[in-house]
Amino acid sequence: MQQNLRIPGPTPIPPQVAEALTRPMINHRGPEFAELLGRVTDQLQHFFQTSQSILTFPSSGSGGWEATVVNLFSPGDTVLSAPIGVFGERFASVAETFGLQVTRVPTEWGQAADPERVAEALRALPEAKGVFLTQNETSTGVMNDIHALAKAIRAVRPDILICLDAVSSLSCVDLQMDAWDIDVVLTGSQKGWMVPPGLAMIGVSERAWAAHKNATLPRFYWDFTKVAKTAEKGQTPYTPPVNIFFGLDASLQMMRAEGREAIFARHQRCADLTRQRARALRLELFANPAVASNTVTAIRTPAGIGAKAITSAMREHEATVIAGGQGRLEGQIIRIGHLGYVHEPEMIACMDALERQLKALGYAVPAAANV
Amino acid sequence: MQQNLRIPGPTPIPPQVAEALTRPMINHRGPEFAELLGRVTDQLQHFFQTSQSILTFPSSGSGGWEATVVNLFSPGDTVLSAPIGVFGERFASVAETFGLQVTRVPTEWGQAADPERVAEALRALPEAKGVFLTQNETSTGVMNDIHALAKAIRAVRPDILICLDAVSSLSCVDLQMDAWDIDVVLTGSQKGWMVPPGLAMIGVSERAWAAHKNATLPRFYWDFTKVAKTAEKGQTPYTPPVNIFFGLDASLQMMRAEGREAIFARHQRCADLTRQRARALRLELFANPAVASNTVTAIRTPAGIGAKAITSAMREHEATVIAGGQGRLEGQIIRIGHLGYVHEPEMIACMDALERQLKALGYAVPAAANV
Repeated sequence: MQQNLRIPGPTPIPPQVAEALTRPMINHRGPEFAELLGRVTDQLQHFFQTSQSILTFPSSGSGGWEATVVNLFSPGDTVLSAPIGVFGERFASVAETFGLQVTRVPTEWGQAADPERVAEALRALPEAKGVFLTQNETSTGVMNDIHALAKAIRAVRPDILICLDAVSSLSCVDLQMDAWDIDVVLTGSQKGWMVPPGLAMIGVSERAWAAHKNATLPRFYWDFTKVAKTAEKGQTPYTPPVNIFFGLDASLQMMRAEGREAIFARHQRCADLTRQRARALRLELFANPAVASNTVTAIRTPAGIGAKAITSAMREHEATVIAGGQGRLEGQIIRIGHLGYVHEPEMIACMDALERQLKALGYAVPAAANV
Repeated sequence: MQQNLRIPGPTPIPPQVAEALTRPMINHRGPEFAELLGRVTDQLQHFFQTSQSILTFPSSGSGGWEATVVNLFSPGDTVLSAPIGVFGERFASVAETFGLQVTRVPTEWGQAADPERVAEALRALPEAKGVFLTQNETSTGVMNDIHALAKAIRAVRPDILICLDAVSSLSCVDLQMDAWDIDVVLTGSQKGWMVPPGLAMIGVSERAWAAHKNATLPRFYWDFTKVAKTAEKGQTPYTPPVNIFFGLDASLQMMRAEGREAIFARHQRCADLTRQRARALRLELFANPAVASNTVTAIRTPAGIGAKAITSAMREHEATVIAGGQGRLEGQIIRIGHLGYVHEPEMIACMDALERQLKALGYAVPAAANV
């Protein structure tokens, strides 16, 4: 029986993409790959809403954090970070690993970063060279308002580097790299792109390129210059994950056919449906509803029922895979992914399954839960 | 028409592996992936001929160089390098990028590293903490005698870290990580393993783990400790390239069915056949025949015929993709890959095509060339 994979990534793979994965291998230094790389990069620009460089790396999304840090900064540089959960914290800790001074703007988990508080922190930190943000915090199911944050940041510091983790949001929700003046946008193939994991994609602004030229942290694998230079020849500095490119080529074609706005609307509908069903079950959403994510919903476990019991029951009795909590939320929440290859029927099936299994675990399901 | 892909990696993908790539996506933090990671690691140990740790990274093989450097060394550390071509040079330059002092034992391209000269260089460099070697140098078609090199090194320095790039050789030719006392063995999925690119695999000895504990270069993405710790739970620190694992699972099954020694013998036969045909065409092999590689053959271009003309003619008229030279060998040699998913018929077809195209380019093919 095929699983209903409802974690916040990797996303299920559409049949067209699965088929593309099996295309015969090609020479990564030949004309077929050059064409593929060019075509994919053009389409990525449409979804990043940028005319600037997009670089690719054979790596998971986390590699994008390290690439951002080592390409744009020097040891001792100060950056401001506004983490709102596990992934924002990790992005900040990568900077610390490489000797940057990180000042954090604390935000209660379940809430979004407050543009005014970020601006205020920035005013108090004139030596800051960058701001680290997360568009969608997968661990809490919260989506930041990046447009508002960027505006507030630019009002204080028109020159600062805004570095954005958009791993679990880009292509699912609006993100206008150029119009909102973001310097680094990083994402991973296994999320909204509907492709298996293995490729990190990073948008790099002119401002970021200028900073890169003066940044002194040592770099080899993640070197932006090397990737950009070989891209001019239609190549990558080292062997690219060719079959992930095959898949991405197919998925981008599907995505263009559906349309950017239609994809955003589909994610909105799936998120609304999930939260509506959760509320009807009188479950408590972890995130402040005003900033709830369109790609993942975090739900507090009902009193007396552990997260592990729910995820196990879903898996064993419903062939439906949902996630538990991470870090200090382990055991306290369950998380349901609705990004990438997702449509209403899968979410209805998932929430039906959740209702049945909660009931089986002794939860008092309200009479009119299934609305 | 399907291409005869005869470059030194990526290798063509067997149908069983292609099919495995399309398996439905799974939760990388769930029991299916834990089982898969365990099974793959066990099989990898058989081919690395080791009982020690094997770590995996979502990355190209080149990532293995950076991982080796940042996990085992500290800024200012001295290492000895014995490069015999482009890839050995790059491994050395990665070490320099991260502040290591690298002393090189020079070797004429086309020759293998001389164990006695390496030992001598090591005696003159008592502060060296590591030796960097390449088993198979893809750019020159030369294979080092790693057993002899390791023996000579251990005679001088029983404690030194032997770090081996086995990207384009491991699983194709004999490599006994434990018996030969090698500390780091790194490889990539797209070579002998018959899987698309995107996964680096690194064997790490007890001695390397001890060095890792004291090494101070900063590391996040490549951190051995993090990978080993999460592996205990059947996970990886960040999203693994799940479909490459699916493919590797299938290819390792094929490889066990064929048998390690039978795979080595098949590579020997394909290499012998290729070189025999080249000699019959009175072409000059670039590598010293005594140390010629079993995974790639480098051939000097005949007088008056450029490498580009040959590779283009092969591609356009024969749907056969071979490689040119790299670095200072560009234009001077062609390279024919025979590794991974390769059997005699593909090599016969390739050499038949080469004979036809050389003739068409004006080369005087000897009367009895096709032997």
